[in-house]
Amino acid sequence: MPSDLALAVDLGGTKVEAALVDSGGRIIDGSRFRRPTGASSDSEQLSGSVTGVVAAALGTLPTGSGLLGIGIGAAGPIRQDDGLVSPLNLPAWRDFPLTELVATTAPGHEITLRMDGLCITLAEHWVGAGRDSSNHMGMVVSTGIGGGLILGGRTVSGPTGNAGHIGHVEVAGFTDDCACGGHGCLEAVASGPRSVAWARAQGWSGSTGEELAESHVAGDGIAQAAVARAGRAIGRAIGSVTSLVDLELVTIGGGFSRITPELFDHIRAGIDEHTSFGFVRKVSVVPSALSDEGPLIGAAALVHRADILD
Amino acid sequence: MPSDLALAVDLGGTKVEAALVDSGGRIIDGSRFRRPTGASSDSEQLSGSVTGVVAAALGTLPTGSGLLGIGIGAAGPIRQDDGLVSPLNLPAWRDFPLTELVATTAPGHEITLRMDGLCITLAEHWVGAGRDSSNHMGMVVSTGIGGGLILGGRTVSGPTGNAGHIGHVEVAGFTDDCACGGHGCLEAVASGPRSVAWARAQGWSGSTGEELAESHVAGDGIAQAAVARAGRAIGRAIGSVTSLVDLELVTIGGGFSRITPELFDHIRAGIDEHTSFGFVRKVSVVPSALSDEGPLIGAAALVHRADILD
Repeated sequence: MPSDLALAVDLGGTKVEAALVDSGGRIIDGSRFRRPTGASSDSEQLSGSVTGVVAAALGTLPTGSGLLGIGIGAAGPIRQDDGLVSPLNLPAWRDFPLTELVATTAPGHEITLRMDGLCITLAEHWVGAGRDSSNHMGMVVSTGIGGGLILGGRTVSGPTGNAGHIGHVEVAGFTDDCACGGHGCLEAVASGPRSVAWARAQGWSGSTGEELAESHVAGDGIAQAAVARAGRAIGRAIGSVTSLVDLELVTIGGGFSRITPELFDHIRAGIDEHTSFGFVRKVSVVPSALSDEGPLIGAAALVHRADILD
Repeated sequence: MPSDLALAVDLGGTKVEAALVDSGGRIIDGSRFRRPTGASSDSEQLSGSVTGVVAAALGTLPTGSGLLGIGIGAAGPIRQDDGLVSPLNLPAWRDFPLTELVATTAPGHEITLRMDGLCITLAEHWVGAGRDSSNHMGMVVSTGIGGGLILGGRTVSGPTGNAGHIGHVEVAGFTDDCACGGHGCLEAVASGPRSVAWARAQGWSGSTGEELAESHVAGDGIAQAAVARAGRAIGRAIGSVTSLVDLELVTIGGGFSRITPELFDHIRAGIDEHTSFGFVRKVSVVPSALSDEGPLIGAAALVHRADILD
């Protein structure tokens, strides 16, 4: 019963999705399902959402097809080898056995769990804007800031599976309180909500990232300063990371990354501010080439591109 | 003509050394030679120092022995694949063909060039305090701050060879000018000279790291604050790095790291300040187990432990 389909599962702070994905990185029409998660959900509700989308996606498996395997991308932190997840924004789940839950719903398949940030990086590397680089960080700038690393052509997930937490790399000069308990982390400075909060503190009257984008287009000075501040901070953090691991490429997706193309000019300025070292300034920073399918494609890459997993 | 000896070369900002090192990581008695380098040296003087120590060390090769190969550790930045070095503190050399120079003095051998920070990490991994970890950052805290990475049991040198520049990871809350052109880099905050300068700015009257150590032992409040400040900053940077690459172990050597064992308590406090994430706080931080032979042992590891080079 040969098949080239993987079951992809993406668990995030507001929703969980599942879909079937072929060996070319294409989501099979009609196989994608979504259910809510959310910080106020209890463990049973979260479990119901996960098993619901997994069962629904599996139910669309063409007659006679088998699965190559199951890939799960989850918001971190995780304990990769034990299959446990503790998503920062899903407090009901701490060291929750997600791999086991999925195995119960879809028994008999190999399951691979990684952080969602690594999955989006794999997706860009496989079929997106990272195809030409073996030394690549993928980033998501949205409600939070996350990412993943491919170094020397292979993923870096680390001994616990938590490598890639770019949102918790510090940025010089900042001291903003972070949800992780620290201060001056990139996520605490430059996420969508933090940029909105900063603008409001300067006197801007909106309340969402979408409104901030509109104000930016309209030439509002505070909105422009907020975008510059976020971009510079992102660039500085990319500078630190490139100093450390000699990146060639950074791909950035997520809602707030699309606030305006000018964000990328500010990111470039932040990298140049970080250092004059040529090996750091060489790093390219480009927008994600994937739509909101990226996380699912990346989860499927855990199966289809298992050859480059560490 | 079998042999288990490697020729190790370590090029730094104040000196260059060479020695023969056996397959157990031991420097052969009488084979170690040192000559000065220094920021005021011209290119010819630097070349003379390098060829001098290389020829002297080679001259001690036992009759009938051959070399397994030559390993060179150099202060960065470097261009690894081209064999070029641009040590920040040796301005006479920018993209200087160091590998070619050594090949001229010792023809017929395979030569491997890496950053000195990677070499000290390899040395700790091979025969020092890093033997039990596959996810390890080695650091030197001295006139500057440098380091190297071993992830998943293999070195990470990066596409240009410059991975490991931990001294140019930013630390939140600081804005000190860095020699790299940036601000708030760890090296600009916590190196020996910067810690001395900070203490002097607070009213302390000494002028060297050794004097700062003496004042610390004597209970001087400014000296204690300077050590705490450096340790916290080092810990914060280790926190950023562990967030990014999920380290298990950090080994730290270099003159300023030995100022007082209390430095390591402040480093631990800095990591805990950085975040409450368990996967970050898990990281162990220990002193180097090697003497000042570490850089040469590490350069030799480029030959003897070529199996784990990326």
